[in-house]
Formats: sequence, C-alpha cells, structure tokens
Amino acid sequence: MADIQRLHIGPRLSEACIHAGTIYLAGQVPTNTANDIEGQTSEVLAMVDQLLAECGSSKQHILMTHIFLTDMKDYPGMNTAWDGWVAKGHAPPRATVQASLANPDWRIEIVVTAAVI
Amino acid sequence: MADIQRLHIGPRLSEACIHAGTIYLAGQVPTNTANDIEGQTSEVLAMVDQLLAECGSSKQHILMTHIFLTDMKDYPGMNTAWDGWVAKGHAPPRATVQASLANPDWRIEIVVTAAVI
Amino acid sequence: MADIQRLHIGPRLSEACIHAGTIYLAGQVPTNTANDIEGQTSEVLAMVDQLLAECGSSKQHILMTHIFLTDMKDYPGMNTAWDGWVAKGHAPPRATVQASLANPDWRIEIVVTAAVI
Repeated sequence: MADIQRLHIGPRLSEACIHAGTIYLAGQVPTNTANDIEGQTSEVLAMVDQLLAECGSSKQHILMTHIFLTDMKDYPGMNTAWDGWVAKGHAPPRATVQASLANPDWRIEIVVTAAVI
Repeated sequence: MADIQRLHIGPRLSEACIHAGTIYLAGQVPTNTANDIEGQTSEVLAMVDQLLAECGSSKQHILMTHIFLTDMKDYPGMNTAWDGWVAKGHAPPRATVQASLANPDWRIEIVVTAAVI
Repeated sequence: MADIQRLHIGPRLSEACIHAGTIYLAGQVPTNTANDIEGQTSEVLAMVDQLLAECGSSKQHILMTHIFLTDMKDYPGMNTAWDGWVAKGHAPPRATVQASLANPDWRIEIVVTAAVI
C-alpha cells in the first residue's frame, strides 16, 4: 500500500505531498501581486521554505525546480531574489520558461520537488 | 540494475513508466478535439484513470499534476471537469500554466506522477 | 538523513542531482545557437547523454522527459533528432509544449528525470 501524506488538502488540490522520501509541492504563486518580480519571487520562495519545513525538509534538500515567468524580461529580477535565497553549495537543478499563469497579476509560479531529510 | 517497467512503448515515447514505486505518465492529450474544454479535460482524465489502473494505481494516489492549457480562458471549464473528477480528500499538488501544444486542436495536456499502490 | 548527490554545482543551480536512485537534470539548452532545430536538439541530447553517464545512467533509463520548444513549428525537426537518438524499446514518457526560453536564440530546452542503473 502506497504511503502518501498530503498537506493542506483542499477540494481542488493539496499544497504538498510526500511519498517514499520525496516531496512534491504544488505550484506556488504570490499573494501580494502589487510587488515587482523581485518581491513576488521572494514571497514565493518564502512559501516554499515554509512548506518544506512542514514536510520535514529545507531548501538545502531541493531536487528540482521548475520556474514559470509570465514575461521573460523578469528573468534578471527573479534571479536576483533566487541568488540571494538559494542554499550555497546546494543549488538544485532548475528549468525556467515563459508561460502565462492562471492570474494575470502573478508574474511567477515555482514548482519544487525535494527530499525528506 | 534499475528496474524500469514501461507501458505502451512506441518508437518515440511510451505512455507510462514505473520505477521504485513511482509512476510517470506521458503528457495525455484529447483524441476527440471537437469537444469543448470541459469535454476534452474529461476525456484526458479518463485516459489518466485508465493508465493509472494499468500501472496498479488510481487517482487517489497521484503525487503531482502539471496541466498545460492552450488558452488560460479555459481555466474555469477545465476546473469544472477536474473538480468533478478529483478524489475527495486525495487532491494532489497541481500546477497549471498556459502553453501552445503540438496540435492546435488540443486545448489541454496533462502530465501526472503517481504512486504504485 | 537524505542522501543527495549534486553534480556541476554552481552558485545558481546544479546540472544534476541524485536521490534515492532517481536522477534529476537541470533544463539542458544548446550552446551552438547557430544550429537549426535538428542541430540544437542533437546537441542538447548529447548533453543529456553526458550528464546521465556522469550520474551512472543512460538514455535507456529515462523516466520522463519534458521538452519546451520556442516555436511549435520546430516540432517535426525536433522529432527527427529525437527519433534518431531515443533508445529503441526504451522510449520514455514525454510531454512537449511551446514556451519562450531565457535566451531567444535557444529553440529548445529539455528536462530529464532518469533512474540510476
């Protein structure tokens, strides 16, 4: 029997899921959409920190990150926030592409896979 | 030696792959492109059900879902089909972004990762 | 304690990460941007081969592939390179969508998940 643990389960999605030592987070998006890309990125990365902590993990244990930017001109601003946040010596594999998101005020969505410590 | 099981292996891709208790499905797309977004989503989710069953799993055991919509204005219609399908109490993490797909008549493509039961 | 091995660790990202027998590669992109889509795809797939070899794996052990194309009109040319490269009988699940990338001269980015042999 698969042992699956879900966190923040809603009717449509859950925010996180743990299986066989691997953590899958839902796409994280900003709530304060008045922020610029650097602010939105920092807010989303703080959400990732919080969810990983709840899952018994941390940014040092990220396995893969998919970043979706509404406009690729935000790439430098996203990286400024990312570079200040990422765990030195533990930077994860990453892929960044441009894609429109469910809310036009969101400039970024981040999908993280991580390992339970 | 990695024990990898593949299902519906073609010359270009296979529809599913199982490794270490985790199931990876290829991006599932509609065949009946005359359907609206709700119909296309329901058809794709039925394909997911079928493939997961063949892999010894079910929608109660999904670990992550990536949804690609050709046009984000289809988001509400996709959610109508999704909300009626998702296993209550077992809703998986999810990320939805807009992206053009290989066939312009496809309005949706869904990528699922799941656990073997 | 999670046993995570990272390869080619940079300040922003690492090119690969191994955890629990599963390999996660960063999005691979072309360096020779003068190439057409077939050439760019072949170069990127050679990078995938190289990274998988460093991780103790090969294209026979790919679990999932996400392909991002800047322009879906490159789909046939990408497939020509892909079909000549993929391991017969071991074709992995795959999803291909259109998305603008961080460098406008990149026509393709490929994200691979694989198994340690």
